[in-house]
Amino acid sequence: MSELDTLIGLLAKLPGLGPRSARRAALHMVKRRESVMEPLAAALREAAAAIRPCPVCGNLDTVEPCAICRDPRRDDNVICAVEDLADLWALERTAAFRGRYHVLGGTLSALDGIGPEDLNIGKLIARLSPGMELILALNATVDGQTTAHYIADRAAQTGAAVSRLAQGVPIGGELDYLDEGTLTAALKARRAV
Amino acid sequence: MSELDTLIGLLAKLPGLGPRSARRAALHMVKRRESVMEPLAAALREAAAAIRPCPVCGNLDTVEPCAICRDPRRDDNVICAVEDLADLWALERTAAFRGRYHVLGGTLSALDGIGPEDLNIGKLIARLSPGMELILALNATVDGQTTAHYIADRAAQTGAAVSRLAQGVPIGGELDYLDEGTLTAALKARRAV
Repeated sequence: MSELDTLIGLLAKLPGLGPRSARRAALHMVKRRESVMEPLAAALREAAAAIRPCPVCGNLDTVEPCAICRDPRRDDNVICAVEDLADLWALERTAAFRGRYHVLGGTLSALDGIGPEDLNIGKLIARLSPGMELILALNATVDGQTTAHYIADRAAQTGAAVSRLAQGVPIGGELDYLDEGTLTAALKARRAV
Repeated sequence: MSELDTLIGLLAKLPGLGPRSARRAALHMVKRRESVMEPLAAALREAAAAIRPCPVCGNLDTVEPCAICRDPRRDDNVICAVEDLADLWALERTAAFRGRYHVLGGTLSALDGIGPEDLNIGKLIARLSPGMELILALNATVDGQTTAHYIADRAAQTGAAVSRLAQGVPIGGELDYLDEGTLTAALKARRAV
């Protein structure tokens, strides 16, 4: 049954799905053709046709510029730089940030040969001017922090203020289970109560 | 971004995917439109258009009767009855069975009001004749075994031999982790070595 095998093969390549769960998902779909399979096929086709990268910030959306860049209620003077679209989504889910974003599309990596020109950094620097704030919301990994340092240096020349996310104990985190790096950062950044 | 939200909502309804993994899968796809998203949309469309239930055995396939029912190398005199398509696939993966199948589409269930007429049982009985063997490969659950008993009674009247899968310790199973029911079944069905 080659159509089904093709489908299972493609599903199995999605993150979080292996061969076994791809088979289960395919089975679920073929048994519910009208309620699940056909709507999903249509949704994929429509999304593939409609979604494109925002020329301003690198977000993916069906409009150009993206809905976040167009939203007049958001603060133009604060830009939050993230590595990846997933990070933008994560921050949007918090509803705690009302400025603009900039998606870098990765991190600098000497090992993988990724230099500044491979990332969406030039456009970010061009968006900055004195009086603005750039929040570096990069991952707390070696590559993320290297990239943050590099961008901070270049952004400082534009006259914009540069900040980064606080590091410390996550909400609900138990000290016993935290790594030493996090505990050290949380200690160093301790606040008076 | 309504197209993307629609897609994530549909993905999240697949078994094994929650809202979080649906977002990850959608993100993976929108970033790889040509290599992942468009092929998957096409595969879904083609599978939805091509796949239908086999009028003989209830398997799903793109041909009528299904490839298993058409295969001349398979034994017509042995029919393996399974609850669900997933069970047929599981048995086919073993490559240990070379007869035909019959997909019942569920089990009898007094609680859910599922009677014999709601399952694909009539066609199964009609396929049986003296000299044939019916293997009841139903789940070792209460409903599965109730259904197996019911079918065994009706199948016996056709003159066909009726068997069921052996119960016992699974390969690689550690006795310490097995439930008492399995151990009791394994003890009762012990074999001379």
